[in-house]
Amino acid sequence: MGDIAAAVETYWATAQARDWRAFGATLADDVCYEFPQTRERVVGREGVVRLNAEQLGEWSLEVERVVADATQAVSWVRFSDEEDEEETQGISFFTSTPDGRIQTITDFRPAAYEPPVGREQLTERF
Amino acid sequence: MGDIAAAVETYWATAQARDWRAFGATLADDVCYEFPQTRERVVGREGVVRLNAEQLGEWSLEVERVVADATQAVSWVRFSDEEDEEETQGISFFTSTPDGRIQTITDFRPAAYEPPVGREQLTERF
Repeated sequence: MGDIAAAVETYWATAQARDWRAFGATLADDVCYEFPQTRERVVGREGVVRLNAEQLGEWSLEVERVVADATQAVSWVRFSDEEDEEETQGISFFTSTPDGRIQTITDFRPAAYEPPVGREQLTERF
Repeated sequence: MGDIAAAVETYWATAQARDWRAFGATLADDVCYEFPQTRERVVGREGVVRLNAEQLGEWSLEVERVVADATQAVSWVRFSDEEDEEETQGISFFTSTPDGRIQTITDFRPAAYEPPVGREQLTERF
């Protein structure tokens, strides 16, 4: 049994380091990356590496939380970008191959917005 | 040691059933609910129950995935609403009290959007 939590830790550490060879080594050959918010999909290690290596700006990231069981993991990551003061949150669901590489990634980027009207009597702001 | 995965399953099943007494029983007295996208916070069981009981529409929900370790869990839930054809995704991070009730909830609602320009050569749509 591989260790999907360790693969996810390596995935983010190597992304932060822009070490795309080591990043790719965390992925199954036929890894499937999906982004439900835009309905985009990328299949295969090369494409997933390129998506990360070519498409992202001068961000740095901090892993806020990783939760994993034997075959699945979820990470919550904070991205910050020098050009943009606003922090972006990234949430990624992972499933594992039998040997502990990443088989699927489902990524979410929830954006900030104003609170809906009508529940301010129940909430405080932070 | 309590079972946070079981508490999360009960949390969603009782929300779907609008059984707010049983829903409240999954929560610590001083449960802290946070919604980072709007920077809203609700502290205490009564407020968290009211937020769910009073503020939501005629949705139904389906649990897509739960990932849990001994003290934390994450759920990915799909909400559908008869008045609104679009499905909403909900992602919730939970931490546990020692006896397996829900101590903290951090909720995200990532909305659909159009894919960014410049990566269409790498992606397919679904």
